[in-house]
Amino acid sequence: MNPFQPLDNVRVVLSHTSHPGNIGAAARAMKTMGLGSLYLVNPKSFPDREAERRAAGAWDILNNTSVCADLDQALSGTVLAAAVTARSRDLSHEVFDARKGALELISRARQNPVALVFGTEMSGLTTQEVSKCGIIVHIPADPGYSSLNLASAVQVMAYELRMALPEPGPAPATAATSGPPARFDEIELLLQHLERVAIRSGFLDPEEPKRLMQRLRRLFARARLEKEEVNILRGILGACEKQMQTLQAVVPPSEQNS
Amino acid sequence: MNPFQPLDNVRVVLSHTSHPGNIGAAARAMKTMGLGSLYLVNPKSFPDREAERRAAGAWDILNNTSVCADLDQALSGTVLAAAVTARSRDLSHEVFDARKGALELISRARQNPVALVFGTEMSGLTTQEVSKCGIIVHIPADPGYSSLNLASAVQVMAYELRMALPEPGPAPATAATSGPPARFDEIELLLQHLERVAIRSGFLDPEEPKRLMQRLRRLFARARLEKEEVNILRGILGACEKQMQTLQAVVPPSEQNS
Repeated sequence: MNPFQPLDNVRVVLSHTSHPGNIGAAARAMKTMGLGSLYLVNPKSFPDREAERRAAGAWDILNNTSVCADLDQALSGTVLAAAVTARSRDLSHEVFDARKGALELISRARQNPVALVFGTEMSGLTTQEVSKCGIIVHIPADPGYSSLNLASAVQVMAYELRMALPEPGPAPATAATSGPPARFDEIELLLQHLERVAIRSGFLDPEEPKRLMQRLRRLFARARLEKEEVNILRGILGACEKQMQTLQAVVPPSEQNS
Repeated sequence: MNPFQPLDNVRVVLSHTSHPGNIGAAARAMKTMGLGSLYLVNPKSFPDREAERRAAGAWDILNNTSVCADLDQALSGTVLAAAVTARSRDLSHEVFDARKGALELISRARQNPVALVFGTEMSGLTTQEVSKCGIIVHIPADPGYSSLNLASAVQVMAYELRMALPEPGPAPATAATSGPPARFDEIELLLQHLERVAIRSGFLDPEEPKRLMQRLRRLFARARLEKEEVNILRGILGACEKQMQTLQAVVPPSEQNS
């Protein structure tokens, strides 16, 4: 295998970027380390002259950039998304430092697409955006001033990804028990399915749903679901759903508890 | 010992920077990782509004920046200077990658000032500037596009310096045989002394001096001279010089070979 190939499977996702110059500088930072795949979620201005200027030769990346309406679209098809934050805030996610996070991403990227997700310049990623990601990657910084420029954060992560590339040689054996990992959108569909069934079953109050779904989301993030496991879970959910539909067609919900 | 203390001994030296924005961005990159000491060699424009804007809060660093007329001044007092390059070009210097170079610098910075030296945006460091440094640090990059933005290069090195900090705990024992290292300016004086003696002795033709002095310079860079060793060498040179002066006062040079 070409030792640099995993880099082709790494997407850099910039969410709601305010300054087009940062998009160009991020593209340049990516290119210096051999990354090429840039996704923009709802950027303030793109394409943009300032982005081209700061890209300084990384125009191929800008020309091939995917502009997405939301984060789900940008993460579609990935098997692992890492939320990059300067502060660690969400202890229910697995938190890696930049170096270990890069190793984790590269090990997944040997086979499947992965993503590194960066938030806005001012406030970083929202809690909702972080919750869509499987792990948190924290760039070590001075606690008194941890505000890395967006493109600088991309540069550090791109550098660590390059440093994390395996030495040329035979691929290490992977555990025989692990099957292909589930993709982002498959897990999203599973969560939607689960929520639907939870509501229909009366377990989840749709008026106050947030806490429960967040917890499930994090559980699945930590679990690193395989495709087959998602299929099994959805099979169970589908079967339950069918039963409930049949029941509710016969006995109206208002009378079920009487 | 405060585990972050070695960072206080690290100078970032930017030589002949063209864009003041890069100076500000470099200051910000330094501050995120706990570095505070910035030296500018002959910058095109400083202080400058654009530098302040891009510093984004790292104004304390800009306010304390030392502006120097030449590299010698910026390196004065340091015991190890690392020339940061994206390409490796000078095989007679010891070349470290960013990670190992940072470890080397931090191990020296526990006791003494060290420097990281960055060249201009367009062409990097000149050969002469590199020759003033003890080691070369090479930031791994894609060979097809290795042009890191100046502030991005500072960010990567500042990050690696922070990552290279020793874990809190007792300092590792240093080899009992090694004495205090010579400082940059002491080595410069030694080189000047050596050149003077070499010319006076007739060994070195001052019309074509460059190659020889470059080689000596690199030798001393590799050797990591200690203070005491410099004193000994200069003692020997001084003694030779005195003899030659005496001789030449008695027998004019034109007659010595006759």
